[in-house]
Amino acid sequence: MKYKKKIHEKTLNDTKSIREDAEKIFISLRDNICKNLEEYENKSSKRQEKFQVNRWVRNEGGGGISSILRGSIIEKAGVHFSTVYGELPAGALNDEKSDVCDFWASGISVIIHPQSPHIPSAHLNLRMIATDKYWFGGGADLTPMLKIKRSEKDKDTVLFQKYLKSACDGSSIDEYDKFKKNCDAYFYIKHRNESRGTGGIFFDNYKSRNSSRDLSFLKQVGHNFIEAYKIIIEDNIEKKWTKKEKEEQLHFRGRYVEFNLMYDKGTLFGLKTGGNVDSILSSLPPLVSW
Amino acid sequence: MKYKKKIHEKTLNDTKSIREDAEKIFISLRDNICKNLEEYENKSSKRQEKFQVNRWVRNEGGGGISSILRGSIIEKAGVHFSTVYGELPAGALNDEKSDVCDFWASGISVIIHPQSPHIPSAHLNLRMIATDKYWFGGGADLTPMLKIKRSEKDKDTVLFQKYLKSACDGSSIDEYDKFKKNCDAYFYIKHRNESRGTGGIFFDNYKSRNSSRDLSFLKQVGHNFIEAYKIIIEDNIEKKWTKKEKEEQLHFRGRYVEFNLMYDKGTLFGLKTGGNVDSILSSLPPLVSW
Repeated sequence: MKYKKKIHEKTLNDTKSIREDAEKIFISLRDNICKNLEEYENKSSKRQEKFQVNRWVRNEGGGGISSILRGSIIEKAGVHFSTVYGELPAGALNDEKSDVCDFWASGISVIIHPQSPHIPSAHLNLRMIATDKYWFGGGADLTPMLKIKRSEKDKDTVLFQKYLKSACDGSSIDEYDKFKKNCDAYFYIKHRNESRGTGGIFFDNYKSRNSSRDLSFLKQVGHNFIEAYKIIIEDNIEKKWTKKEKEEQLHFRGRYVEFNLMYDKGTLFGLKTGGNVDSILSSLPPLVSW
Repeated sequence: MKYKKKIHEKTLNDTKSIREDAEKIFISLRDNICKNLEEYENKSSKRQEKFQVNRWVRNEGGGGISSILRGSIIEKAGVHFSTVYGELPAGALNDEKSDVCDFWASGISVIIHPQSPHIPSAHLNLRMIATDKYWFGGGADLTPMLKIKRSEKDKDTVLFQKYLKSACDGSSIDEYDKFKKNCDAYFYIKHRNESRGTGGIFFDNYKSRNSSRDLSFLKQVGHNFIEAYKIIIEDNIEKKWTKKEKEEQLHFRGRYVEFNLMYDKGTLFGLKTGGNVDSILSSLPPLVSW
């Protein structure tokens, strides 16, 4: 393996407080999201499921907290925080500029597959990456499972987008429209000519001149994601479902698997670079039919 | 798209009888395998499921017969025959020699996912491809779903291999050991460091000096595949299963999906070249858990 660059001592020092703040934000979001999801399970009389928490250490540097909930309302949720650093394999970021160097990366990923076909699946990812420069990436998107709800105009999606736009506006980030288009372009299942979900926001290689504002934006996206999702749960939780609707959900979850295993950069990056397979694939739905 | 070569009139004429014979063999195997699998459903008192047959035409040339059975013994089986020809996208065969030219290809693929966790899933693929030369490819492999059966020494796998060896020996094809190793190397899930199944045979770019012998070999592989599988069904069909064994089957089927969507050349080739998505992905198990 050839190394063109290393993270300079200077870069590490320059970004120290930003990196520390980013980590704090991710950990705080992780705790808050886990708490909120567990509350739905505690409301349910059937079971009182808790997140199974696995703290892990990465031999090459760093570690994380993987948390998986399997409940009766939240059929499966994965909430993962990690900070990792060390040597980055050539081309791993699919970015000429980062080929090849040391790296530092911290982030949170959340995926929620609810039991009810009426409640959409939802996904959040926020990250900060530093090589000889640094940037932010991430996004949030919604995937309704019933055909009747798979439209930008669906009530849940409208609400979800409103909260994400508010996260942009509230942090004076003027790129909501661009981030929304990025999301549609990214979560696209080419071989089906179908979108995975109904939208959200997606950004990468993002950095403004104001890192405090960028961090506040990340925090707000995470916060608004779970606040919007709580309302979406509440709006749908009392609805009964038919056997046919359950079948439609299991069938459409197949699309989710197809996207994640064939196109999702994070999943493929993780699996190719020897990441924790069970954490990475915890994004896959609990039960799927084809 | 650039074209370096075309199939010469001469090549097409020279291979005419071989191509016709190959097609006949594939169609005959298709009919026989469908008939045998349907018989198990007819024996079952619950349902009398038949293959749903879809004859399709490919706009660019050729067509096929896709057949899918969803029953109570055979939870899902896909049996697909096709002959297709026309222009081949650059690199589609992952073979410098075929980059870029017209092609003719005929083949059969079979995938069987039984209801019982005690009965392994099984896969067969046989094909003839002609560009400015021609060759054969294919194989058959077995995937037991219970950990206790995932060994080369398992009774079902031993029987399956015996029948495949017999197909090689019976056609004086002296490459069983090589084909067996190919199979182990091919059906390997890199990110899990696990084999997909317990083995079988796999060959590609294969052609001996005697095309009649090659065709007889393909026929024998298909014939012995279904004969061995019938015995494996009979040996296991009376065994009851526990909820835990069913869960183990659904969970392990996830590995099958991971392999097919991430590594299987035929699947990725088909999806990238605009093949029939439902036919291609009919290889995926009916119900899967992660």
